[in-house]
Amino acid sequence: MTEYYLGVDLGGTNIKIGCFDSDINLIGKTSVPTGAKMGPEVVVERILGAARGLLEDSAITLDEVVGVGIGTPGPADYAAGIVIRSTNMPKFKNTPLRDMIGREGLGKPAILENDANVACWGEFAVGAGKGVSEMLFFTLGAGIGGGIVCNGDLVRGAHGNAAELGHVIVYPGGRRCNCGQRGCVEAYASANSTAARAVDAIGAGGDSTLKSVLERNGELTSRDVYEHSDAGDPLAREITEGTAEALALLCVSMLHATEPSKIVFSGGMIGAGESLLGRVRHHFQEQIWTLKEERVDICFATLGEDTGIIGAGALAKHAGEQGKLV
Amino acid sequence: MTEYYLGVDLGGTNIKIGCFDSDINLIGKTSVPTGAKMGPEVVVERILGAARGLLEDSAITLDEVVGVGIGTPGPADYAAGIVIRSTNMPKFKNTPLRDMIGREGLGKPAILENDANVACWGEFAVGAGKGVSEMLFFTLGAGIGGGIVCNGDLVRGAHGNAAELGHVIVYPGGRRCNCGQRGCVEAYASANSTAARAVDAIGAGGDSTLKSVLERNGELTSRDVYEHSDAGDPLAREITEGTAEALALLCVSMLHATEPSKIVFSGGMIGAGESLLGRVRHHFQEQIWTLKEERVDICFATLGEDTGIIGAGALAKHAGEQGKLV
Repeated sequence: MTEYYLGVDLGGTNIKIGCFDSDINLIGKTSVPTGAKMGPEVVVERILGAARGLLEDSAITLDEVVGVGIGTPGPADYAAGIVIRSTNMPKFKNTPLRDMIGREGLGKPAILENDANVACWGEFAVGAGKGVSEMLFFTLGAGIGGGIVCNGDLVRGAHGNAAELGHVIVYPGGRRCNCGQRGCVEAYASANSTAARAVDAIGAGGDSTLKSVLERNGELTSRDVYEHSDAGDPLAREITEGTAEALALLCVSMLHATEPSKIVFSGGMIGAGESLLGRVRHHFQEQIWTLKEERVDICFATLGEDTGIIGAGALAKHAGEQGKLV
Repeated sequence: MTEYYLGVDLGGTNIKIGCFDSDINLIGKTSVPTGAKMGPEVVVERILGAARGLLEDSAITLDEVVGVGIGTPGPADYAAGIVIRSTNMPKFKNTPLRDMIGREGLGKPAILENDANVACWGEFAVGAGKGVSEMLFFTLGAGIGGGIVCNGDLVRGAHGNAAELGHVIVYPGGRRCNCGQRGCVEAYASANSTAARAVDAIGAGGDSTLKSVLERNGELTSRDVYEHSDAGDPLAREITEGTAEALALLCVSMLHATEPSKIVFSGGMIGAGESLLGRVRHHFQEQIWTLKEERVDICFATLGEDTGIIGAGALAKHAGEQGKLV
């Protein structure tokens, strides 16, 4: 019998579901609005309905499904499969989401994992990290999320909160982070912080072609900053250089920690392309020790918009192989 | 049949060997001068002779020995069991030490691991980290060595060089480290760097009761600095405070990386006791995020001078259980 896996990417706005064969080829996918305001029972009903519809459309029976992977933002008790609370889904409180979807909903074993780890696992299993056994993964979005693969497995930590790599301190005493610490890499190099640093620099009297964008839109995005940096604006260039330097420091320190052979960046800001990647690589070489040459590939994620469902499907397969689907 | 393990701690001056039962109780130990100048063949002969003598004295036959763990300073190809070179043993060059001692020497399978990882594993298996599955380990000596345990196993990295935690950058652009980087935690908080920072501060005109010690001995040790700090000397206190701050930054960043439930400090400088540990804990609480309370125990190693052989014995047992003794 052919074996299939379902991957669920539960976001605040949309639920995406993918169906995968055992090589994690995408057989079919679907998407429905989350309806978060209506509470967890409604959300779960939508997931179950969409999953059943997807299987039917793909001519796959539930009997052929081995397990379900579910990616969700934290905080959650991943080992117990419970969403503790959710910024985007305020009615989720200690919701046993894994079992509501898995054992009770579809009659299938499942695994719940945070969305950054799920995306990391997707890139590791079938994306930019395919073929390596040690990998680091960073998402550059509103914040900086992370994932660590060691010995071919996700590093989850003592309480499921490992790989909070946005909160590695790169500049002690530096910018205040939302988490309460000072100098976190997230306070410098996330998409939001890259834009915020530009706004601050202009507010402090810096001259920049970004000034008119800020006046027109009332805000800046990291895309604005990279566009103006690429166009030669010195202030914008200084900001993007600072983003690359902070990320390079993160790469150096984390290389010495878990010695990955791949460091994979993902998230909206990788749209900046070589203006981001080339400079991170440059600053990494500037900062890294001279004791020996490091053979690490710093690169971009490759899975794109389907990362969440691919990662969830791949993680379901991996958990099944380890006997950890419950 | 009772099962036993041998643990070999190969240092530049002395070889220590311990014999352990399967609960890693120390049955007997011995020590012989390394004789490093005479080259690897002689060193291996001494190890084999000492090991056989130890077994005889302990009334254990080779038949009862399951495997041998060997701890050695790097750089080495641990997977292949080869010492690439050694600062303290200049005649070791691409020496297949694991097989010379193990399969060829004693007719037993063996595992070769770097000394910091071995000490880490000892503390994890039967010392300060006993009972946890996620641990960080730091040695504070001439440099800062490290060890990481995730998912109950050592993190070795893509090329066996993970957990070089002395080279996590805590102060970008800061003090030059021997490794070529700037701002490594090792450049601030090792025993040698703690002493060196005091010497620098006095050289820069700082007033201190350490001045007379420096004039008398021509150098300072970290013990001098802690003694004078404890006695109330403000400059010495500033230096030891700096050591604690750097170590706390390392703990914060690494907590967010692998989320250990124990962080264990070892090495000569832990002789400073509460003057070191209490302040690391204090600065950790000052620096750590406020998002949630962290349940991590920052503590000292407990195995003392036998760490090297205990760790090697425990690692041999673990590798045997994993089918990784070769």
